[in-house]
Amino acid sequence: MKAAVWHGVKDIRVEDVEPKPLKADEVRVKVAWAGICGSDLHEYVEGPVFIPVDKVDELTGGQAPLTMGHEFAGVVEEVGDQVTDVKVGDHVTVNPTITHERWADDVDVYDGYSFIGLSCDGGFAAYVNVPAHNIYELPKDFPLQLAATIEPTAVAVQAIKEGDLKFGETTAVFGAGPIGCLVVAAAKAAGARKIIVTDLSQSRLEKAREMGATDVINSGEVDAVEKIHEIVPNGVDVSFEVAGVQPTFIQSIQSTRARGTMVIVSIFARPIEFDPMLLTNTGVKVTSTIAYSRDTFQKTVDLVAQRAINVEPIITKEIELDNIVTEGFDALIADKKQAKILVKLSGE
Amino acid sequence: MKAAVWHGVKDIRVEDVEPKPLKADEVRVKVAWAGICGSDLHEYVEGPVFIPVDKVDELTGGQAPLTMGHEFAGVVEEVGDQVTDVKVGDHVTVNPTITHERWADDVDVYDGYSFIGLSCDGGFAAYVNVPAHNIYELPKDFPLQLAATIEPTAVAVQAIKEGDLKFGETTAVFGAGPIGCLVVAAAKAAGARKIIVTDLSQSRLEKAREMGATDVINSGEVDAVEKIHEIVPNGVDVSFEVAGVQPTFIQSIQSTRARGTMVIVSIFARPIEFDPMLLTNTGVKVTSTIAYSRDTFQKTVDLVAQRAINVEPIITKEIELDNIVTEGFDALIADKKQAKILVKLSGE
Repeated sequence: MKAAVWHGVKDIRVEDVEPKPLKADEVRVKVAWAGICGSDLHEYVEGPVFIPVDKVDELTGGQAPLTMGHEFAGVVEEVGDQVTDVKVGDHVTVNPTITHERWADDVDVYDGYSFIGLSCDGGFAAYVNVPAHNIYELPKDFPLQLAATIEPTAVAVQAIKEGDLKFGETTAVFGAGPIGCLVVAAAKAAGARKIIVTDLSQSRLEKAREMGATDVINSGEVDAVEKIHEIVPNGVDVSFEVAGVQPTFIQSIQSTRARGTMVIVSIFARPIEFDPMLLTNTGVKVTSTIAYSRDTFQKTVDLVAQRAINVEPIITKEIELDNIVTEGFDALIADKKQAKILVKLSGE
Repeated sequence: MKAAVWHGVKDIRVEDVEPKPLKADEVRVKVAWAGICGSDLHEYVEGPVFIPVDKVDELTGGQAPLTMGHEFAGVVEEVGDQVTDVKVGDHVTVNPTITHERWADDVDVYDGYSFIGLSCDGGFAAYVNVPAHNIYELPKDFPLQLAATIEPTAVAVQAIKEGDLKFGETTAVFGAGPIGCLVVAAAKAAGARKIIVTDLSQSRLEKAREMGATDVINSGEVDAVEKIHEIVPNGVDVSFEVAGVQPTFIQSIQSTRARGTMVIVSIFARPIEFDPMLLTNTGVKVTSTIAYSRDTFQKTVDLVAQRAINVEPIITKEIELDNIVTEGFDALIADKKQAKILVKLSGE
């Protein structure tokens, strides 16, 4: 079967690979649609970040070269001998996170984790084998295309949960990339009253508006903190840092009300300088998320499948697997208008 | 009457001052004992930090030169015409915080505040007039000497509350100055199972042990983070940063378990550099305290007066008002063995 295989930096090849034999606890999914994630892009541009190259991944046994793709949905083609709760023909999506499962769900991920599609073969292929444990069933009338966005949406739902954003509260989202936009959609679904988004890119801000932002601020043109205080005089209840740089880290704190919460959602590439008195003088609490718990993933499946979270506008392009490098990876790098690019595969 | 008056940096004079007329909503307290605080020391060494010099303080109307002292207890000498809930002869301590009272108790302080003894005349004097609202009654059989430590203890109680430290949990306290030691005493009273304290000074660590530390670490001699993980393998539930410098900020996060809480209690003199991934990789939450709420002050009065929090070891010296500069301020600067120095006044 054809698959998009990571061989090295700037070396992703669409090539023929042999499907792996199905293990007793696994499910073979015929992939319908798979999204390209920011992490995939990092592996392409400056990897390996997460992909195991020098030795096999301890949790999955995977090692490069491997098939990428961890945001996908499809139809169950075959189930292993021990699998009882998944049936052939089920429409499913996959939680790609593999953990040690030594701890409770909410702390499990902090003990180290691997990702299907980064640590072992993933969904940029006609078929992928995944542990039944990671399979989540979908209603058959829900488009598998939209279901391919559930995984990144789970990141956003986890962020809302972590910020404890309540019905009718106000929020600011710093960074309108794909995850920032999905945080907007999740905040809208959670009933936020004001959803203020800042970014340097006007096209990203337009996308944020489509996703549900009530106010957008181009932080290259105006003072974002000042502007947010014009909209919500005492600062927002919860802010989300989804840009991963020093200025937005500081702005997020400065835009939050006394005793409000700032949630770090992004990955920081380098240390930052900041004055802890920013926290002491306002009592703003700082917390963070990485991925999502299994509980959050199930909630996201339900919310997206019920269309309670409107993920549709995040999809900006649909491409064929053959063109994944030029029309997928390269397009995401070159074009700020792109949010989520989906790859069409054989399933449906 | 004699009072210790701040005139400028390194210029605190014990001199005669005229007692002010009592306002209708005020209570005149005959001060028995008053403690010297780290903030007082800052005003002495490098002030004015908080003391209003160029214009009157908007909340209290005070302005330098003014009588210092905001940690004190004494006996009610006289009450203003409108005061109904305080009686002459009552033993009392004072919450020196004056706020705008525009917000709920738990966020009130973030809207700006002033301090009796820093923003207007305080307790290093035979008598002081304070709003009845700031008066807290004490049992008559409780030593006023110990009651003079209630105010700094309220800072520690607020920190425990903020960290949500639970019965049987583990904690680490970074910095064994007076506030750090009182956090130890409060953590002990709250039923912490492990109270690990780090500092560079051996004599401060010994004081921390007296206050209830179960383990002490000289961070100049060993790797504090490593040592804490030897004692509590997955990290402590709650850490308290009471040193106010970059290394302890980072160590506090690194010593806390996944999804635990780090509480900033100290005042930072300058910005720090740190990697936000320290938070993302562990899910440690960062929060902070400044002063205390009125609710916390009342809880502290009750806990200290019931001897549930053992404050006694924090008092290292008792001096006369006449010697407050040499035996008080200068001694605190020169001698790390000093924790809380109390000034004996005319009352009781």
